[in-house]
This record gives sequence, structure tokens and C-alpha cells, in this order.
Amino acid sequence: MPRYKLVIEYDGAPFVGWQRQDNGPSVQQALEEAAERICGEPVRFHAAGRTDSGVHALGMVAHVDLPKTLPDGKLADALNAHLRPAPVAVLMAEDTGEDFHARFSCIERRYLYRILTRRADPALDRGRVWWHARSLDADAMHAAAQVLVGHHDFSSFRAAECQADSPVKTLDDLSVARCAEEVHVTARARSFLHHQVRNMVGSLALVGTGKWSAADLRAALEARDRAAAGPTAPACGLYFVSARYGEE
Amino acid sequence: MPRYKLVIEYDGAPFVGWQRQDNGPSVQQALEEAAERICGEPVRFHAAGRTDSGVHALGMVAHVDLPKTLPDGKLADALNAHLRPAPVAVLMAEDTGEDFHARFSCIERRYLYRILTRRADPALDRGRVWWHARSLDADAMHAAAQVLVGHHDFSSFRAAECQADSPVKTLDDLSVARCAEEVHVTARARSFLHHQVRNMVGSLALVGTGKWSAADLRAALEARDRAAAGPTAPACGLYFVSARYGEE
Repeated sequence: MPRYKLVIEYDGAPFVGWQRQDNGPSVQQALEEAAERICGEPVRFHAAGRTDSGVHALGMVAHVDLPKTLPDGKLADALNAHLRPAPVAVLMAEDTGEDFHARFSCIERRYLYRILTRRADPALDRGRVWWHARSLDADAMHAAAQVLVGHHDFSSFRAAECQADSPVKTLDDLSVARCAEEVHVTARARSFLHHQVRNMVGSLALVGTGKWSAADLRAALEARDRAAAGPTAPACGLYFVSARYGEE
Repeated sequence: MPRYKLVIEYDGAPFVGWQRQDNGPSVQQALEEAAERICGEPVRFHAAGRTDSGVHALGMVAHVDLPKTLPDGKLADALNAHLRPAPVAVLMAEDTGEDFHARFSCIERRYLYRILTRRADPALDRGRVWWHARSLDADAMHAAAQVLVGHHDFSSFRAAECQADSPVKTLDDLSVARCAEEVHVTARARSFLHHQVRNMVGSLALVGTGKWSAADLRAALEARDRAAAGPTAPACGLYFVSARYGEE
């Protein structure tokens, strides 16, 4: 069976998340149903990251084994035709080797978190940004964020439901920059704990309002206790941007 | 009665347009109902531009006379609280002079038109861009667009329903630039004919695909006949960006 690698964009708002669940529609289910209509039998998609409900993707990577061979461009077109009106779009689909695994072969995942900092709530970007009515000092956030970069025990930023074997991860980059009315947080690592990006953003926002210093953020990290860190930032501001693989 | 100047962002998708109409909800109606709940009596909003159904605004300017005085920041907050969940946000509201008129005092209007040029349809920006599956040559479009800049009879780009006294307008700027997967068209003039921007974009897209040359665009302009120009580009790609006034 040929294996295909896909790059996928989706609006997370109407979904319970990437993964199939009993309580509502998932991105995985939308893709699998579209593929089943093309191939005539059930297939299984595997993604680089299992995003939560409301989390978006600009370039999620997934793979699927199909019982029939389709020209690369034709597969993306056919999936997109069957996916409508679900807000999921296959940007690229290509034949790949059997040893490629979207999750296990991935060596780097990149996320973007968008915070809209203005008095008025968003009209055009509702559900696409975290609306933070108070202003945030992006420079202070960026400076403090460097405390979290590197090899650490991230227990303070780990959701209780996290299924990872260890809370120790290496965070390769955590950058904060102002972009007009928005503050953008970008995070890059081989892998993340459950809710790690949203929990780091929630604490960085405390730095941005001046409530926390970089030393407070360091103390939260060193406590290795979820209760020591800030709140979880909302899902709607988070975007899975891209996944990198060894051959690239 | 104090007069207030407002800057307003809205998602045009759920509205019949700016102006009140019998066939559905309008942005004007949403604002007037919010203001009536604050003031206890009917009020009337006047906008710099009467956008069509589906057309968005990043910074529409309007004015309203209110039967009571409110601190500037408080008016915006109160309107926003009453506007929810309608996708309309008042970004700024300030006390202004009685001689200020959002429509008649305006000396320049600026529009942005977003075209997404890629094979896959938009998942995140559905209803926010014109999806054009074929690629477009933005440089060729920009060069041809200069044919339209200046003082011309724009009858070829004027909707049949247009109520303007004359088809002669001065187009101050028409620029086309590529922005990653999108092509952005910006247009600036004191005023525009009905559908003028969308009709110019529809013709520029013919240039972008190579079907038309700059000479074809010039011939369409000189024909002074709507039938000589290209189709009307969809409303969803158009944004009213800003309005400029003499004092600024």
C-alpha cells in the first residue's frame, strides 16, 4: 500500500481536536471519511501533533496508507472536494517511503500563539486570537521567555492529563514579538508536553502585564508544580505551524 | 447633541452590508440598536462608505449624534458590550465637532483586496479572501494597474445600480503586490463608484492569468462600457481599510 505524506491547514473551532473522540467531530475523522469515499475502504491518518479542541493548524503534517495509488496532486484535490464544507484543506500530498511516520519521524514541531492586545474585542479574528484587553510588554515577555529555553523539567507547564513518559523536554526556541496590535509567541522543540505551549503563554502574559518578573517565571519552572505557574491560555490563539523531518 | 466619530472593524459575512435594508441584518442596524440600548432613544449612524454584503472593514469611520454625553472610552466599551455577539467592534470613539461628517468630510478612502492563489481552498481564511486556484502574476497586474490610476471615466468598472452623479473619478493609487500565497490589491481615492474596486480587481485577475495585457485593460477602460471589462470579483476579498479627513 502506498504511503502518502500530507500537509494540512485547518480551523480548529468546530472540532474536538485532531484525534477522533466520541463527543464530536474531529479533524482526523473528517480526513478519514473523505479518504474512505475516495478509496472505498476505511483508512487511518497519523499526525505529527494531536492538537486540542479549538487549536488551528497552518501546516499540520500527517501520513496515510491508501489501498490505491493516486497521482500526488489528484489526491489533494480529491480529498479537498470531499472535505468541503469542513474547514480542512490539504495543501500538499505526496508519495513517501514506508519508513516515514508523521509522528515518530518528526524531529521538530513549531507553534505560533497569537494574542490580540487592544481594548475592543476582535470582530474579524474572533476565535483566531486570544483577546487580551490589557496591553502586554512583548520585550519583557521575550526576555523572560529565555528562562524556559533549553533542557528542563517542564512539570509546571504540563497538563494533568499529559501522557508523556517524562516531563523533561528540550525547548529549542521561545520568542515573543509585537506585530501591530498583536503579540506573537513562537515555540520550537522536538516535542511538547500536553498544554505546554498554552501554559507557557499563560505565564508569559503575567510577565507582559508586569505582575511577574523573569525571576518569578524561573521560580515557577523550578517548582516543578503546575500550581506554581500561570493559567492555561485559551486554545483559540494556538496554531500548529509546521513539522520538520530528518530528510529535510 | 454631542457628535462622536467612530472607527469600526467588522466581518461582513453575516450582513447585507453597511446600510439598513429590509432583507437582513446590516452593520448600521447592529450599531444603531446597540446605541439605542445605551441612550434610550433611536439614533442614526453615518459611515464613510456603504460597503456591500460580505465586504469587511478594518477601519470604517462613522459618526453619530447622541442625546447624551459619554466619556470617549466608555462609549466604545458600552457599544461593544451591546454589539456582542455580532462581529462588529468599535475600535475608537471620540467627541468631534458638529461640522464633521463621516461621509461628506472624507477626503480619501482606502481599500484592500485579498486574493488567495493556491490549489487548495482556504480553511482558515474562508470568506476572508477570494480563492483563485490558478496562479497570478502580481508584477504584471501591478504594471497594468497603472493604466487605471488618474482622472478617468470609469463607466467600464461601474455597477448598473451605481447612484453617483458622474462616472468620472480620480484614482490616486492602485497597487498590486504578492504577499506569500496571497496577492494584495490596494486602492486609494477620494471616492469610488459602486463595485469599482471589485470590478477593477476582476479585470486585473485576467491580466494576472495572462489572458489580458495592459493594453487590453486600457481598451476596457476606454470603452466606457461595463461589458468591455472583466467580471466582478467576489465581495469576501474586499476590506474597507481607512478613511482620511482634512484635519489629519
